[in-house]
Amino acid sequence: MRVAVLGTGIVGRTLAGGLVAHGHEATIGTRDVAETLARTGSDAMGNPAYPQWAADHPDVRLATYADAAAGAELVVNATSGEGSIAALSAAGAENLAGKVLVDVANPLDFSAGMPPSLFVKDTDSLAEQIQRQFPDARVVKAFNIVNATIMVDPSGLPSDHTMFVSGNDADAKAAVVRLLEEFGHTDVIDLGDLTTARGPEMLLPLWLELWAALGTPAIAFKIVR
Amino acid sequence: MRVAVLGTGIVGRTLAGGLVAHGHEATIGTRDVAETLARTGSDAMGNPAYPQWAADHPDVRLATYADAAAGAELVVNATSGEGSIAALSAAGAENLAGKVLVDVANPLDFSAGMPPSLFVKDTDSLAEQIQRQFPDARVVKAFNIVNATIMVDPSGLPSDHTMFVSGNDADAKAAVVRLLEEFGHTDVIDLGDLTTARGPEMLLPLWLELWAALGTPAIAFKIVR
Repeated sequence: MRVAVLGTGIVGRTLAGGLVAHGHEATIGTRDVAETLARTGSDAMGNPAYPQWAADHPDVRLATYADAAAGAELVVNATSGEGSIAALSAAGAENLAGKVLVDVANPLDFSAGMPPSLFVKDTDSLAEQIQRQFPDARVVKAFNIVNATIMVDPSGLPSDHTMFVSGNDADAKAAVVRLLEEFGHTDVIDLGDLTTARGPEMLLPLWLELWAALGTPAIAFKIVR
Repeated sequence: MRVAVLGTGIVGRTLAGGLVAHGHEATIGTRDVAETLARTGSDAMGNPAYPQWAADHPDVRLATYADAAAGAELVVNATSGEGSIAALSAAGAENLAGKVLVDVANPLDFSAGMPPSLFVKDTDSLAEQIQRQFPDARVVKAFNIVNATIMVDPSGLPSDHTMFVSGNDADAKAAVVRLLEEFGHTDVIDLGDLTTARGPEMLLPLWLELWAALGTPAIAFKIVR
């Protein structure tokens, strides 16, 4: 499958690398290709600049948001939550129409420092905001409850865990479930329509608390039932 | 231990019954004892009126909020979230001072129908509101992420699960961890100070979505790490 992964951060890179490792074609989308390729140094989390990562991943292409989305069968939103609508607008509603749009972003608000709060929650969600803005895209919320490494390879976890999908389009959700299963996730719960993205997005505060309490972001949730 | 359980609903009853079954003394607190004892019929969830339940649980006493709290070493807030501050005020700050106050309530707002939203979240929590209102109580958030049956007896779950405690007083948290362990919970994570009650309280929307998707409230969360 030809996949556009919007976002050059660690989540986008890891997802693109994982997709290629599983036989898919992946193009990372960015606002400005030349600017992205001119980056040097590391980010605040110690991740290398994009060109350094790209040198080790020659199979992953880089393109503008619009070019990446235009050539894709499936689009992944791996941008920051606050930048998601702008990035998807740059990708172009016409390049998203009819396509599965996997929203892995979280609506984190860092404006008051750490820990972040959520800029949308409870009675609405980022996934629903995206769906309203791009009504012809087939938005599926998924992946957002674990860190990037676990997203594409949960084999390092000591036991079984659960992943969620939320969306209004059954075929789109089925496509995302297949992708989750390719990556090794064995227990996927379909929560329902896109309003159910609220629950997984509201897991983020607990996820951040657990990271702090346990000293590791290698955390997943198993729904025991 | 002499425990006051504030709240005559299914959560309060089940906790009181579980405490007695584990050798504690339990007194349920209510606003108006005579009114509670005059109730007939079932509630909206099909639970019998209090007197019917009490007839099967002669070891659980009934008293006013204030009398129950005054005679207790540990107090459990099992009232509805919206009624918690009023119930605890009726119990009396002087009867809560210095005591462990286990807050099992959730800040559910049913004013717009089902599913409920949360009347406090993200940058504050019900547990913190209670602590601010009763600064001399030793508030511990716990139990609120599972249904009442699982709170006092998780043996029906098919596999291991996780419970959380949050609070500002280490000894108070240790007392609540002991209670959780008496009830059969084997994996308890201390999330940190009372601000970490936000994460578990924000689990409720996901819990409600899971109940709808899975068709059962017999759900628990295992933190895989």
